[in-house]
Amino acid sequence: MLSRKDIQQTARRIDEHINRTPILTSNTLNKMCGLELFFKCENFQKSGSFKYRGVSNAVLVLDQEERKKGMITHSSGNHGAALAAFASSMDLPVFVVVPASASQVKRDAIQRYDAEIIDCGNSLESREIAVRECLAKKDMVFIPPYDHIDIVAGQGTVGLEVINEIKDLDEFWLPVGGGGLASGNVLSVGNTVQVVGAEPELARDAYDSLRLGARQPQMEPKTCADGLRTALGSLNFDILRDYKLPIVLVGEDEILEAQSILMSCLKILVEPSAAVPFAAILKNGPKNVSSKKVALLISGGNLAI
Amino acid sequence: MLSRKDIQQTARRIDEHINRTPILTSNTLNKMCGLELFFKCENFQKSGSFKYRGVSNAVLVLDQEERKKGMITHSSGNHGAALAAFASSMDLPVFVVVPASASQVKRDAIQRYDAEIIDCGNSLESREIAVRECLAKKDMVFIPPYDHIDIVAGQGTVGLEVINEIKDLDEFWLPVGGGGLASGNVLSVGNTVQVVGAEPELARDAYDSLRLGARQPQMEPKTCADGLRTALGSLNFDILRDYKLPIVLVGEDEILEAQSILMSCLKILVEPSAAVPFAAILKNGPKNVSSKKVALLISGGNLAI
Repeated sequence: MLSRKDIQQTARRIDEHINRTPILTSNTLNKMCGLELFFKCENFQKSGSFKYRGVSNAVLVLDQEERKKGMITHSSGNHGAALAAFASSMDLPVFVVVPASASQVKRDAIQRYDAEIIDCGNSLESREIAVRECLAKKDMVFIPPYDHIDIVAGQGTVGLEVINEIKDLDEFWLPVGGGGLASGNVLSVGNTVQVVGAEPELARDAYDSLRLGARQPQMEPKTCADGLRTALGSLNFDILRDYKLPIVLVGEDEILEAQSILMSCLKILVEPSAAVPFAAILKNGPKNVSSKKVALLISGGNLAI
Repeated sequence: MLSRKDIQQTARRIDEHINRTPILTSNTLNKMCGLELFFKCENFQKSGSFKYRGVSNAVLVLDQEERKKGMITHSSGNHGAALAAFASSMDLPVFVVVPASASQVKRDAIQRYDAEIIDCGNSLESREIAVRECLAKKDMVFIPPYDHIDIVAGQGTVGLEVINEIKDLDEFWLPVGGGGLASGNVLSVGNTVQVVGAEPELARDAYDSLRLGARQPQMEPKTCADGLRTALGSLNFDILRDYKLPIVLVGEDEILEAQSILMSCLKILVEPSAAVPFAAILKNGPKNVSSKKVALLISGGNLAI
């Protein structure tokens, strides 16, 4: 399994390709929560989300011959946009299988970087069939969205930046969808800070999987947090189970309320998925320990405006 | 008149009170405009706009006795919120005269910092009467919104940060309303970079004033850029006339289009006034000189979401 050292090496590999994203703070939000909060703004990452980290690592570990074949993935959003953006920066061809349910803004983000979009149905099966059909026609490299060691390593690099910049950090809160982000950061910084997950009540497969000790299927999630509708990956489940990741569940109204507060106080665009950890903090109620230092990952900013 | 040295001293005076705001870049926007663009994000300044700089300077130059009397100003928005936020951080009482036409989000921003709001009519006269009535009842210090040397000096500090961070910058584009921001930065960095103003067609008093060589009245401006409806100040007019500030006018649709592009590409909240310089850049059309380095001031991010 990946060690912190491996992920430090990943950080060096992708360093010149990614943005060093800012960490924002707000006295108003600190007072509201009774905590010292630090918002790591991956909405300012290239392509608008942390997904760019994993994608750039997964492509950079390939040799030149493989890269030239081109890349393919399936994605309803940020992973597809990230792969399209990175491949375009390297002048590599890229195909993204996009389900009909993908939001227009995310479809636009994928198209902006000259990816070829292949439409498919909404089920995971329909996506996978479309990918297989493409691969049968043309030899390309499949870049999986989250359940892969190179993706996990890339996502884990964000935690290294967080603990380097914030001394004596107590907790690092992250949204949990497919689990690539959470498991990467458990592996990179989970020994130094307490990593905590947050998940929509309406897409609670990770919460249930960890509670029951066995991976549970995702039940057609209807949450507004479109980035977190994916099922927990199998590799990621093992990592999060071993860490005993605590997960806080939040409702839809809580997510939208948190999103609105973050946007008006921090002056940043925050997609619903990215507001889920703050929703969880708000749900826990104000603390009286303002000395406690808590970082939150703002995972992305791709939303219609 | 203020020299760069004076404004450097101002920067040291306010340094510990303000945020060092980030400068964002975007490959997508660079390609769109054929320029190397740098967005100085004063929407991340305390209270959500650059106005915090001028206000903190205007209060910090006062002695303790004066400060304790409390502060008063009139403002439909960001200046009032900035004064309320700064006074609240220093535990000083503050009163803000707010015209009926002020947007709810800006009224909320003023109220958030415990300022006492005094309602008045929409005309400048009605605002000034309300201030005089308050001053007749209670001895306080009036902190003017833009036409004052301490305010101008504070606003000019942002340009110093911009030229320190961006080597070989060619131009610095700013929105022009009352002219405090533009004149402060003409004085602080106008000798090093070309300062350029941008103004809504529907609030073009600065453009007309500079073209005709005499200050023109502001004609009940209806622009969506609510921060730029104020009339050009008399002190500021003199400074901008001496510099021969070029000003580009933009229409309402151009402002809204620019605001939308900035928000979706930079992932930040941008109020309409803050999008005016980018609207002017877009209006000028794409350049073929991508080596030209242009900074734009994002003046504020207080808008309803």
